[in-house]
Amino acid sequence: MMEICAALPFRPENPKTRLSGILTEAERTAFADAMLHDVVSALRDAEIPVTILSTAEYACEGASVAVRNEGLNEALNRFLSDSGKPVLIIMSDLPLVTRETILRVVSTEKDIAVVPGTGGGTNILFIRNPKAYRVQYYGYSFKRHLEIAEQLNMTVDVIDSLRMSTDVDEPEDLVELLIHGNGSAKQWLEENGFSLCAENGRVSVKRGETRIV
Amino acid sequence: MMEICAALPFRPENPKTRLSGILTEAERTAFADAMLHDVVSALRDAEIPVTILSTAEYACEGASVAVRNEGLNEALNRFLSDSGKPVLIIMSDLPLVTRETILRVVSTEKDIAVVPGTGGGTNILFIRNPKAYRVQYYGYSFKRHLEIAEQLNMTVDVIDSLRMSTDVDEPEDLVELLIHGNGSAKQWLEENGFSLCAENGRVSVKRGETRIV
Repeated sequence: MMEICAALPFRPENPKTRLSGILTEAERTAFADAMLHDVVSALRDAEIPVTILSTAEYACEGASVAVRNEGLNEALNRFLSDSGKPVLIIMSDLPLVTRETILRVVSTEKDIAVVPGTGGGTNILFIRNPKAYRVQYYGYSFKRHLEIAEQLNMTVDVIDSLRMSTDVDEPEDLVELLIHGNGSAKQWLEENGFSLCAENGRVSVKRGETRIV
Repeated sequence: MMEICAALPFRPENPKTRLSGILTEAERTAFADAMLHDVVSALRDAEIPVTILSTAEYACEGASVAVRNEGLNEALNRFLSDSGKPVLIIMSDLPLVTRETILRVVSTEKDIAVVPGTGGGTNILFIRNPKAYRVQYYGYSFKRHLEIAEQLNMTVDVIDSLRMSTDVDEPEDLVELLIHGNGSAKQWLEENGFSLCAENGRVSVKRGETRIV
């Protein structure tokens, strides 16, 4: 396989605020760590070296960490400019990614491969020629990343994967993690009392005996 | 390709009640028709003949219709007993399915292929030996369908696809349809005033000028 490097943006301080209705800040920090660990493990299994672009000091086994005091897009675009190899940009809140799913992305024959996040974001972006491409995250970035590729006459693959499109932001997203997960993040949830509840039709999530979603 | 037949359960009366906060009954009926049309088109493109198992009289170009006055599981299990060929069971509310995604399912080398729905349901189920298998839909059916296969010593493929896992039940699901759709259901939404709104970070859906989700 060609040489690839991965960039993984991460904000260790007060992460996953949309889960603050159900998790304390300390819990969100531990849970975000567990999700990051799952992504790093999948990259390691796929033999893709990863640099965590962190907004603060941070340590993670199996990854190098670079502290970046700039915005997400600025940090990523600097990484792209500096890279001599194809780059895989991957978000930290994708606890369902696996070696196999990542290999589906990087084995594209197109110039760019995009995995949309639910709700129009961009969860994973593979860029064969990183010198030429500039990212623009936030909001409806999936569409923008397609447009940027088109402006550059780059060919694009949109990868169809529930596991990679599932970014965990909201309490509802825990349902998919508890159903399909098999790593640290699912284990963290279980150790902290979360479980599926399939009593009345739709599957929901409870913590202890309290229904969450 | 081997011969396959598809079974598509459908309830034409008062469909998609979880959308009743945003669509009238007449609109839900038209929208459900459009989604069904998208699924039937994808099956036709994949050259898989389909029988709609309908709870009431219904007509659909490109499909045969059988009226069934029994429950979902009873109707499907009768279909399985009666079939001499591998069966693809597919739900009617999957407007993002395409020929290519369906071919991913039926080209499995396993005995069973399952596409989970978001929230633990079963959106698509391919059964190579339909005489031996019995379905059990509703609730956490994804897990049950895996267990039933295991009890029968059948091998299972779980197919990882956002397009096929996206069943449209709730207003939130319209976001994915408007982002990724390219068929009748998306067109119906657009003709009826629905559009994406990407102004403030997250992508949302509006009808006219009114934000829906």
